[in-house]
Amino acid sequence: MSDTPDVDELTPPERTLMGPGPSDVHPRVLKAMSTPLVGHLDPSFIEIMNEVQELLRYTFRTDNQWTIPVSGTGSASMEAAIGNLVEPDDTVLVPTNGYFGGRMQSMAERAGGEVVHVDAPWGEPLDPADVADAFDEHQPDVFGFVHAETSTGVKQPDVPELTSIAHEHDAYVVADSVTSLGGVELRVDDWDVDVAYSGPQKCLSCPPGASPLTLNDRAMDKVLNRETECRSWYLDLSLLEGYWGEERAYHHTAPITNVYALREALRLVAEEGVEERWDRHLQVAGALKAGLEGMGLEMNAPDEYWLPSLNAVRVPDGADDGEVISHLLEGYDLEIAGGLGDLAGDIFRIGCMGYSARPKNVTYLLSALGETLDANGADVSPDAGMDAMAEELSD
Amino acid sequence: MSDTPDVDELTPPERTLMGPGPSDVHPRVLKAMSTPLVGHLDPSFIEIMNEVQELLRYTFRTDNQWTIPVSGTGSASMEAAIGNLVEPDDTVLVPTNGYFGGRMQSMAERAGGEVVHVDAPWGEPLDPADVADAFDEHQPDVFGFVHAETSTGVKQPDVPELTSIAHEHDAYVVADSVTSLGGVELRVDDWDVDVAYSGPQKCLSCPPGASPLTLNDRAMDKVLNRETECRSWYLDLSLLEGYWGEERAYHHTAPITNVYALREALRLVAEEGVEERWDRHLQVAGALKAGLEGMGLEMNAPDEYWLPSLNAVRVPDGADDGEVISHLLEGYDLEIAGGLGDLAGDIFRIGCMGYSARPKNVTYLLSALGETLDANGADVSPDAGMDAMAEELSD
Repeated sequence: MSDTPDVDELTPPERTLMGPGPSDVHPRVLKAMSTPLVGHLDPSFIEIMNEVQELLRYTFRTDNQWTIPVSGTGSASMEAAIGNLVEPDDTVLVPTNGYFGGRMQSMAERAGGEVVHVDAPWGEPLDPADVADAFDEHQPDVFGFVHAETSTGVKQPDVPELTSIAHEHDAYVVADSVTSLGGVELRVDDWDVDVAYSGPQKCLSCPPGASPLTLNDRAMDKVLNRETECRSWYLDLSLLEGYWGEERAYHHTAPITNVYALREALRLVAEEGVEERWDRHLQVAGALKAGLEGMGLEMNAPDEYWLPSLNAVRVPDGADDGEVISHLLEGYDLEIAGGLGDLAGDIFRIGCMGYSARPKNVTYLLSALGETLDANGADVSPDAGMDAMAEELSD
Repeated sequence: MSDTPDVDELTPPERTLMGPGPSDVHPRVLKAMSTPLVGHLDPSFIEIMNEVQELLRYTFRTDNQWTIPVSGTGSASMEAAIGNLVEPDDTVLVPTNGYFGGRMQSMAERAGGEVVHVDAPWGEPLDPADVADAFDEHQPDVFGFVHAETSTGVKQPDVPELTSIAHEHDAYVVADSVTSLGGVELRVDDWDVDVAYSGPQKCLSCPPGASPLTLNDRAMDKVLNRETECRSWYLDLSLLEGYWGEERAYHHTAPITNVYALREALRLVAEEGVEERWDRHLQVAGALKAGLEGMGLEMNAPDEYWLPSLNAVRVPDGADDGEVISHLLEGYDLEIAGGLGDLAGDIFRIGCMGYSARPKNVTYLLSALGETLDANGADVSPDAGMDAMAEELSD
């Protein structure tokens, strides 16, 4: 049997988080995390639940009654969406243009669904014509797509066109908005999205642990009229309906502190205004992008699909992505990430999300990255990058 | 579309938490919750993961390599245990003697298992002879039991006897230790328990959100050699093996802050000594029990099955449980709970867990409860209760 462990006080390094998430957490949200707990059935917590639901609806741009934080990190809200909506033998259409379409596939298969694909290369969005063809060919019951692909830095345009194709075929639409909610234009109701899920540690700048999910009545009707039970008890929305719906009855112990933090993070969204927040991300990430390009680097995504919250930039000739990432972490306490899957080794992924989407952060990032690439043997012009960024920021 | 919500600063009431969980959180743990984040793949976080695993092994009294915090609240670690261990068509033996056996059944069925029962009334432990009979009759593959039944205040004795019956039949044993880990004697290795899960917000006094789970190699072999995939992607231990095992590869974003908090809560266990902590719970809860009995109340569980961390006490004649609970919350900012299921209306459930298992808390509880019951028309002797408690505490 192991001896009594001798573990020191917690003193993690002070990082600047500019990777694909988590982003830097706002001090007010950190403060909320240290609030003493009330019970998960306390009348005061019921009131907090109502407030969080109201703030989530505002941020998702929806009136959906069924808007809740799921008790887990972003992949839990993702599995809650897919695992509840997909019934055994449903046909589920998923994209191939990034890492998270693959995760959708795995979750849909575990739910008992038959998975079919709409193809597009990594780094490209879906073409509505291809989606329409896939619908004609496969007649799927559920269509999932990724609004903001964290693995490629691509924003899916034409969302209303995609949802109308799906609805013409009586299918349900699930949108992955993990890296868009609160940072990139997302209009659940106007765009007719049936189900959307997200994570708190991206553009909401909240520690992970309670993850946004919204379903319209049409989707919730499908969930509540399933022929077989959801394969997860923990994520079963027909049971969670008892806790987050009218009754407020015990299902499981909610992550109280994470709900406190999400509430504070969403208050910051409401104070700023969600549309103003989208504009800030465009502006600050635009300066970052100008700086990267000004330095001589190439963005992975064409301008029309550029995702402000996640800037995928090609690794320049002469540089080793792993060495650069390590050097930034060790020399600058600065986190960025490399590519995943088809893009491993080819790109850096630089987040510009929530509280990290500030001139201070992008200035530091650009300065540190320029110096590091230069020292790493890449042919870049750090000064030109800084100038281009400064010019954008001063506009 | 909803207007911008106007939500005030977070100012929940300052409760004293003496219900079935969450318990009062230690100030050092609250402080850890407000620590700025590092990324979930940061080398410094990998080190923190190692430390948490080491501290969890110590607290579970195990050398199991497979000892991790699951990214969710206690029901998530419960479903991770059952959903991974139970394969379709496995026969699963579960108890009927409390609320959480029913939850086990629901999770096992969703995993595709065939559920059979070992019977005992609510408020009684399982009799090893009944367990042996159930094994002979049903030959189950997996046997789940509840070590500390939060719904009835009963501690299951004879655990080594139960595990040896199961192992004679080549079955796997899953122990629910949600309300025992860190507060009530639990020896995973010595008692030959294959899988145990817990929650952080009970005797560990940590906010919910990252929940302890341990599996021995024998159980993990079954999990890694399943013929079908686990029905949850989020909780699939064969995938989590990549993150928490040697490789430390990305699976999902861990709830970083909750892991920080769990680390601090477990440091407090190690500083106190886990066996000394069991003793403290016995002593402080013993004083609480003496006070309740001295006041004229009756414990629901016989002394030999009494669970120190959760004291179920009969609602006395003349008192209304809901009124008493509301009065304690509103008049004293003090949380206790009523009964669930078969015991709804019959008992109060009074927790004595972790940082709440202090003389200060039980003195306050007993004083407030005595006054409230007296005012509510019950025939109790508050002063005799306080004297009996003080006598126990001074021993």
